[in-house]
Amino acid sequence: MKIAVLGAGSWGTVLADLLVHNGHQVMLWGNSQPVADEINQAHTNRHYLPEFAIDPAVEASLDLEATLADAAGILFVIPTAAMRIVAKQVAAVLAKTGAKPILISATKGLEQNSHKRISQIIGDEFPAELAQSLVIFSGPSHAEDVATHDITSLTVASENIKDAEWVQGIFMNEYFRLYTNDDMVGVELGGALKNVIAIGAGVLHGLGYGDNTKAALITRGIAEISRLGIELGANPLTFMGLSGIGDLIVTCTSVHSRNWRCGNALGQGQKLADVLTNMGMVVEGVGTAKAAHELSAQCNVEMPISESIYRVLYEDADVHEEIDRLMQRKGKRELDFQRY
Amino acid sequence: MKIAVLGAGSWGTVLADLLVHNGHQVMLWGNSQPVADEINQAHTNRHYLPEFAIDPAVEASLDLEATLADAAGILFVIPTAAMRIVAKQVAAVLAKTGAKPILISATKGLEQNSHKRISQIIGDEFPAELAQSLVIFSGPSHAEDVATHDITSLTVASENIKDAEWVQGIFMNEYFRLYTNDDMVGVELGGALKNVIAIGAGVLHGLGYGDNTKAALITRGIAEISRLGIELGANPLTFMGLSGIGDLIVTCTSVHSRNWRCGNALGQGQKLADVLTNMGMVVEGVGTAKAAHELSAQCNVEMPISESIYRVLYEDADVHEEIDRLMQRKGKRELDFQRY
Repeated sequence: MKIAVLGAGSWGTVLADLLVHNGHQVMLWGNSQPVADEINQAHTNRHYLPEFAIDPAVEASLDLEATLADAAGILFVIPTAAMRIVAKQVAAVLAKTGAKPILISATKGLEQNSHKRISQIIGDEFPAELAQSLVIFSGPSHAEDVATHDITSLTVASENIKDAEWVQGIFMNEYFRLYTNDDMVGVELGGALKNVIAIGAGVLHGLGYGDNTKAALITRGIAEISRLGIELGANPLTFMGLSGIGDLIVTCTSVHSRNWRCGNALGQGQKLADVLTNMGMVVEGVGTAKAAHELSAQCNVEMPISESIYRVLYEDADVHEEIDRLMQRKGKRELDFQRY
Repeated sequence: MKIAVLGAGSWGTVLADLLVHNGHQVMLWGNSQPVADEINQAHTNRHYLPEFAIDPAVEASLDLEATLADAAGILFVIPTAAMRIVAKQVAAVLAKTGAKPILISATKGLEQNSHKRISQIIGDEFPAELAQSLVIFSGPSHAEDVATHDITSLTVASENIKDAEWVQGIFMNEYFRLYTNDDMVGVELGGALKNVIAIGAGVLHGLGYGDNTKAALITRGIAEISRLGIELGANPLTFMGLSGIGDLIVTCTSVHSRNWRCGNALGQGQKLADVLTNMGMVVEGVGTAKAAHELSAQCNVEMPISESIYRVLYEDADVHEEIDRLMQRKGKRELDFQRY
């Protein structure tokens, strides 16, 4: 089976390698000729994965039509900001060829300004017949750990469970296990909004807080994500799953997380602009904090942790004052997943 | 307000200190004269908390009647195995004095053989009027971190939310935040069963697995705890909270966790009997693994992770074979919180 993987960053590269390991033919589409040449000739992608030896059968290309030709599945692994433009290009190619592959998105985030989820962007750009086959691929999966065959479990969500099961079958192997879910809204929101909380976890670590504080942040973080999710049509139990709490745990506890590292640098007193310049990769949570700020206001849902992080990122608020503000609120009930 | 704290281990000692910090009078009851003398004279408890300076106002005693006299609340912080016998003693004292304090339990576990929760033991041993006031106190709270005023959040659960709010008011301060919940069954089961999963997290760490694997174990661990919990009358959303996933996260990621340390030593190839001897403290998860094994069979609920840990602990099963067995099961749906 041929699978087209769009996006030659760390996660796209590792998933391309995994699909080859599982016996599939893979073309990996990127936008940098030097990176494609490096993958095809040296079988490495050192900017993203310094120590990873890519299976030589992974073929990288800048040619979208060649990448998509005869593909049974198309896996999007690109930054959220590029999703709409790439979706338009893919839709144009498929309109020409008439092919009807399964669309799979491993991209996590919300579109700036519109706050649309990836499935909504896909819905805008593809004919209904193709958009309905979309499968969202999400969960606790640092690429660096999948590269070393660390045991990893993810959620695959689709309105049509058969499509999710198809994706489950393609990806599952002895170190990679997938669980199906029919709640796309919950899976997408969990994957996007957790990046905001991960910045907060990094900030707390940078300030010297310990394990109890981190666990409290993660748990109360998923509580406020659930509050917003319910308003937007998600099943609250989805946030207990791999795409919710699972992804949040790994993002908040792994040094591989860009969002966590960004927060950690902020907690140590660095300025946001300097942190982003130094990292040289997209930090999805910074944009998502703005989306969360706007969405929670729009839905009238209280998200005190995300709101504090927004103020630190966008209004130069003092971190210690934000922590005091969070701790001094009056006592609450735990499962108040209703509108405030 | 006078609070009696029963149990002078690490958690009891730190909570006694916290209550004094909050302006309450505290007596701390233990069963070792040398420990009580050390607390009263040197204001330390070095076996459990080598570096902690206890507030000199904490008074330790071996005299249960003196400890309970005029107490508005009684906080149980003793091992599960001692719960029934101490409850009997406390009930006898209260029957004599006619006092009606609020009972609070910070003990996590299930009684061996009967599999009873702490609230059921209290229900057996106290008159209904007293047992109905019971508040369960649970969440991600390594004593060592609370000792250094690390920000910590917990759940307080009671059938009567007013009692939970009373406890919330007594304990809350600038570094300690409590959330109320009315689902005692869920809070108690989460607090007990997470110790089994924590042993598994330690085993994986001892074997060299990384962050993705740990997040998958925690998430699928809470899924199977939820499956059993629903059968026993819990609200599944409680397991998303501080007493569920929150406590599981801290127990699975902190080196302070005894259960995690026990698992880690097993993963490194040590024998269970040697590990327990070397640790010299109660490892609640070992007993709870047996209770989970029996309860899941009794309720006909599949708990594959807990079952593998049971086999490693009690049947000398090979860890690698158990991991392969878990990974080779067929693909599943994520939110299958129904009977199997």
